[in-house]
Amino acid sequence: MSLPDHVQDELASAFGARFSVKAADLSHYAGSETFHRARLPDAVIWPETTAEVSFILSLCNANRIPVIGWGTGTSLEGHALAIHGGITLDLSRMAAILEVRPEDMLAVVQPGVTREALNADLRATGLFFPVDPGANASLGGMASTRASGTTAVRYGTMRDNVLALEAVLADGRIIRAGSRAAKSSAGYDLTALLVGSEGTLAIITELVLRLQGQPEDVAAAVCAFDTLEHAVDCVTATIQSGIPMARIEFVDAETARAFNHYAGTTLPEKPHLLVEFHGSGESVRGDAARFGEIAGEFGGLGFDWASTAEERARLWKMRHGAYPACLSLRPGATALVTDICVPMSELAGAVTAARDDIREAGLLGPILGHVGDGNFHATILLDPENAEELAAAKRVATRMAERAIAVGGTISGEHGIGLGKRDLMALQHGEAGGVMAAIKRALDPNGIMNPGKLIPG
Amino acid sequence: MSLPDHVQDELASAFGARFSVKAADLSHYAGSETFHRARLPDAVIWPETTAEVSFILSLCNANRIPVIGWGTGTSLEGHALAIHGGITLDLSRMAAILEVRPEDMLAVVQPGVTREALNADLRATGLFFPVDPGANASLGGMASTRASGTTAVRYGTMRDNVLALEAVLADGRIIRAGSRAAKSSAGYDLTALLVGSEGTLAIITELVLRLQGQPEDVAAAVCAFDTLEHAVDCVTATIQSGIPMARIEFVDAETARAFNHYAGTTLPEKPHLLVEFHGSGESVRGDAARFGEIAGEFGGLGFDWASTAEERARLWKMRHGAYPACLSLRPGATALVTDICVPMSELAGAVTAARDDIREAGLLGPILGHVGDGNFHATILLDPENAEELAAAKRVATRMAERAIAVGGTISGEHGIGLGKRDLMALQHGEAGGVMAAIKRALDPNGIMNPGKLIPG
Repeated sequence: MSLPDHVQDELASAFGARFSVKAADLSHYAGSETFHRARLPDAVIWPETTAEVSFILSLCNANRIPVIGWGTGTSLEGHALAIHGGITLDLSRMAAILEVRPEDMLAVVQPGVTREALNADLRATGLFFPVDPGANASLGGMASTRASGTTAVRYGTMRDNVLALEAVLADGRIIRAGSRAAKSSAGYDLTALLVGSEGTLAIITELVLRLQGQPEDVAAAVCAFDTLEHAVDCVTATIQSGIPMARIEFVDAETARAFNHYAGTTLPEKPHLLVEFHGSGESVRGDAARFGEIAGEFGGLGFDWASTAEERARLWKMRHGAYPACLSLRPGATALVTDICVPMSELAGAVTAARDDIREAGLLGPILGHVGDGNFHATILLDPENAEELAAAKRVATRMAERAIAVGGTISGEHGIGLGKRDLMALQHGEAGGVMAAIKRALDPNGIMNPGKLIPG
Repeated sequence: MSLPDHVQDELASAFGARFSVKAADLSHYAGSETFHRARLPDAVIWPETTAEVSFILSLCNANRIPVIGWGTGTSLEGHALAIHGGITLDLSRMAAILEVRPEDMLAVVQPGVTREALNADLRATGLFFPVDPGANASLGGMASTRASGTTAVRYGTMRDNVLALEAVLADGRIIRAGSRAAKSSAGYDLTALLVGSEGTLAIITELVLRLQGQPEDVAAAVCAFDTLEHAVDCVTATIQSGIPMARIEFVDAETARAFNHYAGTTLPEKPHLLVEFHGSGESVRGDAARFGEIAGEFGGLGFDWASTAEERARLWKMRHGAYPACLSLRPGATALVTDICVPMSELAGAVTAARDDIREAGLLGPILGHVGDGNFHATILLDPENAEELAAAKRVATRMAERAIAVGGTISGEHGIGLGKRDLMALQHGEAGGVMAAIKRALDPNGIMNPGKLIPG
């Protein structure tokens, strides 16, 4: 399929050089950070205003042309691939920070603003936007996939930090959901419905984000453990003790090896916890001391404190580089990244079962995670040309997902469904999958919004 | 309208004494705590299981009979009134606490469990359910209206504290939304869609609730101010300072007078703040001291600390009794209760404008609120027989709502829409109201679920 001539003419005349059907421009949109690949879209447009997005959608809706939003391309489940062709909307030119209101602790941004760009802009205000998935993703993409990351244990996910939004529906209607007030009970929570809807219901064109005060003091440390079980049990005990963690991250021995290999660190090749505390100097010291006692009970092998901002930046840069670090363990590899999230009491069991499954399948799959939320990832390394390996990895991932569901957890803590987990949606949601499909039909009757994603097939 | 004979026969035979069409039984369901009144429903049923709710809904759906959920009848916007007749489902017999998992900090309850019953049950676990709207409401009702109350500034609203739920759709299908994990990005957030949907999409039959650790220490105090502006400005400064408040409540001079009149207190007839801090002994003392300094800057007239649990219980009982206390200022009165919520920087302006409007309209309307969220209520006292007074009160309420919207706020912080704010939905939501209506039609095509509520008319 390619675009009908009249559509192509209309878009070319409306957008000029911001519309392209050239393979050289399109090839950027056919890949992803993981094993997911797809055909090229039929065209790409770089819109600059909400009105332009509305124009594109109503034209595409009238002509039954798929529209797929694109932020920075850092999603892990193939969300932004044009598997049924159509037009990719690259939102990177809608990157204005429209308003910052320190007195109301909120910022209004266009969807193409990245989290690092927003935080650079906020530096002087004493505020920051806390959601941190690692990648320098666009805030629109983070909202669309309901992203979270290392700080969710303290500050919540995109669900908790998007106060309001503007979005364009399939038929071009522009709506606003939510308000700038701290809470609202005025009708259906359309903000929460659109956050995490992965571009299948609307294109988000503006976000009102909740900001946080920059902590007076921060302390971060890394601590090794002899076994995975001890590290994970330490997390559970810490969370139950009520110590306010800003971050509590787990990496297994293989991930430590990957860091050493990729980032030149000299960590012992053992499981580690990486922790961070935010607060006043006194509270941070108290929290750190209490955590130290708990870690000691589980055989924690001493702390390496990152006391300066530069040391902390290095620590979290290492953590955020985990994905390329893991890939570097097997040159030329791509990966399937799992993402289950379970109740805390099930975490140790879920992590050890995953490790055993990966080992038994003969795969290499370092494990790490935002374990304060019960969320962890295995980065299963794959030869991109080896279909059997991919099939084996998918079997392991499916077993992990089934186990997560069996203990009341979820198949996706933060990466979303996209292409990669669609087959598991029925297992997770049963009849509720039909409700999602009914909502999709009601808002996108022609099925043009990111078709083939999220909704159970 | 009354029920078709075959429906009445089928329900009578299925439910026996738990089905009634007697006026003596039905009259309980025709009133509300505020000025909203309605005709009797055609019947009431007291279901005991999810399967019974499913049976009732599929029968009513096939016969186009409205179904209205009823918790404890404490909503303020007429949510549970059978304005188009039909069957009231009184969920008070679905009141089992099904499971408490301290290690996962969650509880699983039926919708008829009240918040006080749950917290009584939790006492020995060291955990509690924090959302506190004042009334001893049912948790199903609180979820349906997206309730919050005095503690939302610290612990969030029902949006933040319902992890998962079971619900029955109009056609009798039983669905589960959410999971027991701390976060999820697995598809549309149906939990958030149903929380706050006021029984217009489904009947909630089970809730998984997030629990909190009981604070080690609690400190609460009341402090008077010379003017409303000083009290509200003190709140804004406190919130911006980042002091972690568990509660920060405002009452105006008229409310203080109402407490003295109704509860026998001896407060100065001035504006007051009521505050509470949760934490360790040390952190609570530090927070209280920092708040004391800020209050001093705004002319706070000294603190009356409630240092024992009994004194605190008395303090919050007084606060929670504000509604009857205000009513007692005018014997025989009913009330219209406003509920706007605005960004913090707009709070002082919104409160003073509301006070001036009420005064100019010649009405009596004490003001109080959960001002840490930017949310406040005027309880406008009305002679139930005086239509002109009601019309004047509605004009004042509409002006407040319009002002809230103009500054980016919401027409309802926590009471919901029900009957009372339906006319304002278009003003608040514009095109997004059409999206709500489309979702309603998709899930309830026959319009049997609490018809005439929430959705813009």
